[in-house]
Amino acid sequence: MERLKQQMKFILEIDNLKKVQRQSYLSDGSRKENDTEHSWHLAMMCFLLKEYAPKEIDVLKTMTMVLIHDIVELDAGDTYAYDDAGNSTKREREVKAAERIYGILPKEQDKELRNLWEEFEEGTSEEAKFANALDKIQPILLNDASEGKAWREHAVEINQILKRNEKTPKGAPELWEYCEKLLEDNIKKGNIKAEGGVV
Amino acid sequence: MERLKQQMKFILEIDNLKKVQRQSYLSDGSRKENDTEHSWHLAMMCFLLKEYAPKEIDVLKTMTMVLIHDIVELDAGDTYAYDDAGNSTKREREVKAAERIYGILPKEQDKELRNLWEEFEEGTSEEAKFANALDKIQPILLNDASEGKAWREHAVEINQILKRNEKTPKGAPELWEYCEKLLEDNIKKGNIKAEGGVV
Ligand SMILES: [Ca+2]
Repeated sequence: MERLKQQMKFILEIDNLKKVQRQSYLSDGSRKENDTEHSWHLAMMCFLLKEYAPKEIDVLKTMTMVLIHDIVELDAGDTYAYDDAGNSTKREREVKAAERIYGILPKEQDKELRNLWEEFEEGTSEEAKFANALDKIQPILLNDASEGKAWREHAVEINQILKRNEKTPKGAPELWEYCEKLLEDNIKKGNIKAEGGVV
Repeated sequence: MERLKQQMKFILEIDNLKKVQRQSYLSDGSRKENDTEHSWHLAMMCFLLKEYAPKEIDVLKTMTMVLIHDIVELDAGDTYAYDDAGNSTKREREVKAAERIYGILPKEQDKELRNLWEEFEEGTSEEAKFANALDKIQPILLNDASEGKAWREHAVEINQILKRNEKTPKGAPELWEYCEKLLEDNIKKGNIKAEGGVV
């Protein structure tokens, strides 16, 4: 039963991801969401929106990728997209986290999930491109629904959003087009700062 | 863009599932978990524990099933496992909810997800048997980790747990064996009432 014990230990360890808070608010603005809520939402989006991936993707692989993509934040914490200092040490902190956390699992599952996480981080496979696009699009949807609550709190500029989303149009062109309209609306409403904006 | 709008509307609608609270506490007992946290956890368990399904299962189908299985609770609410009055009207409330919520989606996705939910509820396919077993096992893991917090609050008896888990041994025999040991421990600790107990 050694194998099952390792698996169960991991399953309890990742329960703690329910306490890692993100910067995005729920659509009604009532509170911030956590990593597991976000990951569930991405997996649902992956299933529902898979037809918008530019090339055929392995849906199971992509869903698993989004379900696990934030597990490293158990140790490394959530680094806000527009926190430059935090982002400079992010990779190092996350690699260490991946070693410890996935290392709880039986060897081949450790390897499988670490590889999947690295593939997501690299962002070059079809699955990773689509997964990364969803990961960027979901907070735009929530921000738009909550009157730009997180954008306003952080005084986010459109340029920052566009830079962060450089690869999103290639990962999910039609979904990005949908988001561009939301972004335009939110600049008009003053929820996103237009400074230097090009939308 | 009508199709994408329907899909996006659904994606925002199910954001509200993050606010539907369950009776199970997080493993550290700090607070109760919600339906999306629970569903994410089940999807992770499905991926990690699929080798324990008695017959080969379609993993993507099973993962999708657990990701969506509680969406009806958006309207119908979470009915506690040991609430007999609530459970007598559960089916009716949930069918109505399924009609409204999945009805937001484009027709074929509506049909696909409703069928998947009904398959879960029926519990007879290999995928549904395993998904239902996971749905029962996860709160046992959390209850055990949190010193039986929810069991103690509701003064749950072992007979109630065993009755609720009648089908779990068939859905995931080795995982149920693992749970039986946890249940025995928790009877000894007084976290579960032994009255009429047969463990
Ligand atoms: Ca339920």
